Amino acid sequence: QPWGRYWDRWLMMALSGMAVGLVGFFLHFVIHILSATKYHVTRWLLAHTHVVIGWMFNISFSLALVYASTWLVINVAPEAAGAGVAEITAYLNGCFMPKILNVKTFAVKFLSAATAVGSGLPVGPEGPMIHMGAAVGAGISQGHSTTLGIDTGLFRHFQNPKDKRDFATAGAAMGVAVAFSAPIGGLLFVLEEIASFWQQSLGWQIFFACMMAVLTADTLRSAQAALGEGQFGLFDKESSTVFFEVQTQLTNHVLMVLPAAAIGIICGLCAILFTILNLKVVRARAEFFRGKPAKWRMAEPCLLIIIFVTLGMILPLFFPCTPTQCVIIQGETKPLCPDLGPSEVIERIVEQSTELYTCSRTARDSEVPPEWDPDGGGTEHGITGNITVPRSYNELATLMSVTGEDAIRHLFSRGTHVEFGYSALLIMLVFYFLGAAWTAGSAISSGVFVPMLLIGACIGRLVGLVGVTIAAARGLGSHGAPAGVFLPPSPWAWIDPGAFALIGAGAFMGGVTRMTLALAVIIMEMSNDVRILLPTMVAIMLAKFVADSASHSLYHGLLEVKCVPFLPKEPASLMSLDLVDVRYAMHAPVVTLREQMRLGDVRDVLRKTRHNGFPVVRDTPQGGVCVGLVVRDHLMKLLVEAVKRGTCQHLEVPFTELNRQFVDASALESEAAQQMAVLEGRPLTPSHFPNDPTLWDETLDLTAYINTSAIRVPESYTLERAYILFSTMGLRHLVVVDEHNRVRGMVTRKDLLGYRLDEAVKRARVGAVPQTLGVTGSGGGISLESPRT
Amino acid sequence: QPWGRYWDRWLMMALSGMAVGLVGFFLHFVIHILSATKYHVTRWLLAHTHVVIGWMFNISFSLALVYASTWLVINVAPEAAGAGVAEITAYLNGCFMPKILNVKTFAVKFLSAATAVGSGLPVGPEGPMIHMGAAVGAGISQGHSTTLGIDTGLFRHFQNPKDKRDFATAGAAMGVAVAFSAPIGGLLFVLEEIASFWQQSLGWQIFFACMMAVLTADTLRSAQAALGEGQFGLFDKESSTVFFEVQTQLTNHVLMVLPAAAIGIICGLCAILFTILNLKVVRARAEFFRGKPAKWRMAEPCLLIIIFVTLGMILPLFFPCTPTQCVIIQGETKPLCPDLGPSEVIERIVEQSTELYTCSRTARDSEVPPEWDPDGGGTEHGITGNITVPRSYNELATLMSVTGEDAIRHLFSRGTHVEFGYSALLIMLVFYFLGAAWTAGSAISSGVFVPMLLIGACIGRLVGLVGVTIAAARGLGSHGAPAGVFLPPSPWAWIDPGAFALIGAGAFMGGVTRMTLALAVIIMEMSNDVRILLPTMVAIMLAKFVADSASHSLYHGLLEVKCVPFLPKEPASLMSLDLVDVRYAMHAPVVTLREQMRLGDVRDVLRKTRHNGFPVVRDTPQGGVCVGLVVRDHLMKLLVEAVKRGTCQHLEVPFTELNRQFVDASALESEAAQQMAVLEGRPLTPSHFPNDPTLWDETLDLTAYINTSAIRVPESYTLERAYILFSTMGLRHLVVVDEHNRVRGMVTRKDLLGYRLDEAVKRARVGAVPQTLGVTGSGGGISLESPRT
Repeated sequence: QPWGRYWDRWLMMALSGMAVGLVGFFLHFVIHILSATKYHVTRWLLAHTHVVIGWMFNISFSLALVYASTWLVINVAPEAAGAGVAEITAYLNGCFMPKILNVKTFAVKFLSAATAVGSGLPVGPEGPMIHMGAAVGAGISQGHSTTLGIDTGLFRHFQNPKDKRDFATAGAAMGVAVAFSAPIGGLLFVLEEIASFWQQSLGWQIFFACMMAVLTADTLRSAQAALGEGQFGLFDKESSTVFFEVQTQLTNHVLMVLPAAAIGIICGLCAILFTILNLKVVRARAEFFRGKPAKWRMAEPCLLIIIFVTLGMILPLFFPCTPTQCVIIQGETKPLCPDLGPSEVIERIVEQSTELYTCSRTARDSEVPPEWDPDGGGTEHGITGNITVPRSYNELATLMSVTGEDAIRHLFSRGTHVEFGYSALLIMLVFYFLGAAWTAGSAISSGVFVPMLLIGACIGRLVGLVGVTIAAARGLGSHGAPAGVFLPPSPWAWIDPGAFALIGAGAFMGGVTRMTLALAVIIMEMSNDVRILLPTMVAIMLAKFVADSASHSLYHGLLEVKCVPFLPKEPASLMSLDLVDVRYAMHAPVVTLREQMRLGDVRDVLRKTRHNGFPVVRDTPQGGVCVGLVVRDHLMKLLVEAVKRGTCQHLEVPFTELNRQFVDASALESEAAQQMAVLEGRPLTPSHFPNDPTLWDETLDLTAYINTSAIRVPESYTLERAYILFSTMGLRHLVVVDEHNRVRGMVTRKDLLGYRLDEAVKRARVGAVPQTLGVTGSGGGISLESPRT
Repeated sequence: QPWGRYWDRWLMMALSGMAVGLVGFFLHFVIHILSATKYHVTRWLLAHTHVVIGWMFNISFSLALVYASTWLVINVAPEAAGAGVAEITAYLNGCFMPKILNVKTFAVKFLSAATAVGSGLPVGPEGPMIHMGAAVGAGISQGHSTTLGIDTGLFRHFQNPKDKRDFATAGAAMGVAVAFSAPIGGLLFVLEEIASFWQQSLGWQIFFACMMAVLTADTLRSAQAALGEGQFGLFDKESSTVFFEVQTQLTNHVLMVLPAAAIGIICGLCAILFTILNLKVVRARAEFFRGKPAKWRMAEPCLLIIIFVTLGMILPLFFPCTPTQCVIIQGETKPLCPDLGPSEVIERIVEQSTELYTCSRTARDSEVPPEWDPDGGGTEHGITGNITVPRSYNELATLMSVTGEDAIRHLFSRGTHVEFGYSALLIMLVFYFLGAAWTAGSAISSGVFVPMLLIGACIGRLVGLVGVTIAAARGLGSHGAPAGVFLPPSPWAWIDPGAFALIGAGAFMGGVTRMTLALAVIIMEMSNDVRILLPTMVAIMLAKFVADSASHSLYHGLLEVKCVPFLPKEPASLMSLDLVDVRYAMHAPVVTLREQMRLGDVRDVLRKTRHNGFPVVRDTPQGGVCVGLVVRDHLMKLLVEAVKRGTCQHLEVPFTELNRQFVDASALESEAAQQMAVLEGRPLTPSHFPNDPTLWDETLDLTAYINTSAIRVPESYTLERAYILFSTMGLRHLVVVDEHNRVRGMVTRKDLLGYRLDEAVKRARVGAVPQTLGVTGSGGGISLESPRT
């Protein structure tokens, strides 16, 4: 029974789920405290003192946070910079990404993300959450950490690359699940974007893990609420588990797909622009900081936060006060207008959908229309203990002077057709677009999901506003409601800019990340609105189409900039690879080993080449036939072990030891140092006696360490199928043999990258096979091409 | 660019999506008309005439429909019997399932499902919809139908097994999407349950196809509404696109996972029982009807409908009239009770949540409490033109005398805590449980999804009722509400039997089908309630755990009963296959061919063996080395072609022709007859001259038809990895070679079935390798084991 065989794996998934839930809860908690402090104090200062004092507090508080954030990244763990999604993707794709999963990176990621998001930069915590989830999943499953000097000794059988990768995949899924409170979305995210190899049972385990993660986070939020005022465990409208829950379910309409299609196309175009801009900034930054001290990089986020905070306070000043509009609440068929409805309800709505940083709190109290202010000017700030008049608000401040998540909530709010005008939305869009593109990739730990949602929401709401304008111009407003407000009895009730903002958010993310399925589910899970699913799918699909026609996705683009050998799930070739033989893509000659070898020869091979996989051949009367593959890592460990013992006799290294990988950097370094010492013939430790020269003449028997299940294919194997083998089976090496099973060449991941494939196709056209002469054992005919394969 | 290479594939997906949407709409439309006729006329007769007349109409109408349904299946297309989900799963798994995708099966499936569901049997249209979707997807993409004598000549390059399978996969997904109005759920259904091999780009295409299918169905429903009374395109509460949309969003609570866990475990146990019962019925039926004329099988559905209709009318008579309870509607914080609320609203709720077949319409008018009936007896049936009094209802009739979908809606309705008592729910549960287990698999086209939802909903609602009883006994009811009714301000507002019914529905389906992800999404999409997602996931996961410990899923069980060589995604072995070499599972000796062969020898091989794949060897000084694989089907086509031409010279059959498969039965039959004729040396057609004996001495050059990309593995390859190759790469044959690339054996799907794997493990323990001597070419050493591999 699978359960009997794998119960410990399920247990481990539950443990990691709880851990990720815990991390996610605390990350949100810290961010909430920081940003609440920032905005509340700033608002209080704005209301009670001079604007400049407010600005000074705001900028110094934010700057301190950003400085802390970037200091940690630069000085403690440079691997924690950026979102980390691309890096995790590459790691799970099979690329070598040092240090990204160790404890130090995790801790810096947490603190840096919390401070960066809390400071008010246009960044979000979701990307780092994914990275942290993967680190937690990989770390817990390994049961030890050399950085912390802990080795529980438990779960040693998970200490192999495959299981570590599985748990890291699960961890990334849990990260998404907790970040968006979307357990299904998390699973689908890794399925669609991250995981290169998919197994049914792993899918179920991740499902379970995501469930546990979200359950833990929810329970903690419940407990927090219990400590505050509410009862333990109950989530009502105000403290829903659904992140951007819609309060009004729209009547949906088939025609809604038309504006959704428009949003999809526009978002696709903007996503291309965003991706290109982002990559250009990354390249320009690398160019600019090349050769300069690392500390210089700390200036960039600090400069950014100054610009961002200042503009965020100045730009709204150009906007007049807008009186509170009519709003529509769930279950009602009439709008609640300031001059009609019960003021109590209006007040609640105003509180919910426009934030407190409004005109009435700034110096512009007098602009509140007198007929709405029976007190005739009222108290100093338009606020009495018991508000009976609706307030006016500043359109742009409502979006800019709040956290990104709150701004998204405002944009998503429904029944608020004319709350934000064209100019406010356009300025917000441009401001955030440029800000996010610049900030992403600077020396802080920050994600780009919140900015993407916000940019998409602005685009969607703009399109919705166009719809409202057209419909209002044709006099289609609901009977009894102000012009441009549509309500359920009207057939135009589906024209709601808030709903289109949600569609736009999905579409823009689709255009940037090129996901479809996972995004549609995440949008559904975070809005609790299934009715809008179909238009969202249309918009996401179109955005993806449009964006696919122009560029890679942002993550793949970033990996390309960083020169990581990432293999997309489908070959990135212009040509059909069906008709190209694998012989045109393989590299040859290949360094091969024999089953029994002089230890010295093994050392020489390892010293002279940097290949990671070596075919092992057996001499037969018909020539050397391939019997399997040995990986460099295992050979190295055998070598170190032999040197430590001083003999090759009865050298038995258990498989778990061979496959063990260290999660953290220092252990890796000490291991690498040992290995270098062995290769260069230096003593392992100062106290270690110099190597016995006779040792190198002993024979090492590799038989037990050969992977006889390494796949070998004939030269005429098609390249297309070889690619599928790599991407579905998670291969790293493929041995190409001739009809007598003699090694002809090797294919590695690097040979399947886009430009290499195109070269192979060209070679296939002219029929130029890489020369396969000189296939030799132990040392001869070595070709040193790729430093890491 | 993928788009440039594959635009016609996307177009085809759009076309199939629209076609499946069309089919789904019409299926629902026909079912709606039939069942509306049945129930409305019966109700009218019950109200205006004697009960016996109502019963007679009901039974004769239903019987006629069931007779039509079973007649079609027995006499026209026996392949259309049952749900078809298991068959489609097996087909897409790589098994040979004749005739399931042809036009005749499709038409019978449609009519039989419509009449069977319309008749009121405990069956649903979802399973058949999946089968029809796959048939539409496969049929449209092939662009021709020999049954209908149509060959458009378009899309000839899709006429190969792989593309046909891809489109059938997409079709099945569209079927689910349309059946549940759940586009994402459809995609995930095939990902989790059906598709054996998953490609990223296929996933996106299916996403698109499901979107188009649901969009088409929605648009048609809009158009239908426009023809009726509403406006085109608008879906409001009454005509929502969400199937079982909840009208009240509950405040959710972390504690909700506890009853959800209970529901999960109970549903898991019931699902085991249901699966075993179902399989026992299938076996008993096969036993009973063996050797008897096919017409006898028509008696079974007819008997079933008589029992079902009669019990459905008699059982409710044992239930008293229940006065309408308080209900809770969305947006309100107080319950609407018959003696408090505005009668207009109450009436709407009563109409929605309890059906018209109530006490007040039967002979029990007098039981309406007098204080609720100001007219003092009122009109004949308690109904005046303008109803001002709430009515009473019969608990069991509300569930039994409506369609399955309406019963599910009643069970899912929220804020109706005490609407259904223990006895009504228990009787309904037992009645449907036995009825569904018996009906499934009888000679009608019918699905088991609606019964599963209903059974699960009954279980969930029973557990919820226990919760309500406990809470009410402790006096925890909301202030101002009747005992046992909980409302939003109360911390117990999450105890709602309707919500637990939804959880139960998901959990029971999870226990029977063993899906998790797809079910959670389908439940979310069909209820439009994301808040309940987490408890649903918990329940589904637990139900799956419980059920996995006892038996196979229903579909896999059915396939086992039918002896279909279905490969689950993970090996069904008790042992770890990591350490077992593939040599213990392969069969040997193997019949091999040579690149150039006498045509007569090819014929002899095909005549004497029934293998489907033959390794091709090339003679070298070191013995025969494997160069590839030729499949029986291609050899047959070459043979027929050679006989038709009378020579092997310049015999060139294009690849599209070789791979072409006929969708319908008659073409397959004529092809098979031709092939038999060739093998047996008979003339192809009466006018055809007898075969030239010299033809058989000619040499057939197979070089162009060898699949040189056939995967070959060494004998020491592990069985675990071989299994993964089969399931992820969709293999049918795997050639096992020795270190000199000489053929040692073959592995086929049948060798990887559960019991074969266990045998292989046993052989590995004693080290007994199948004898590999006698590997021969052309005719010698043939082993005739498996009729179809």
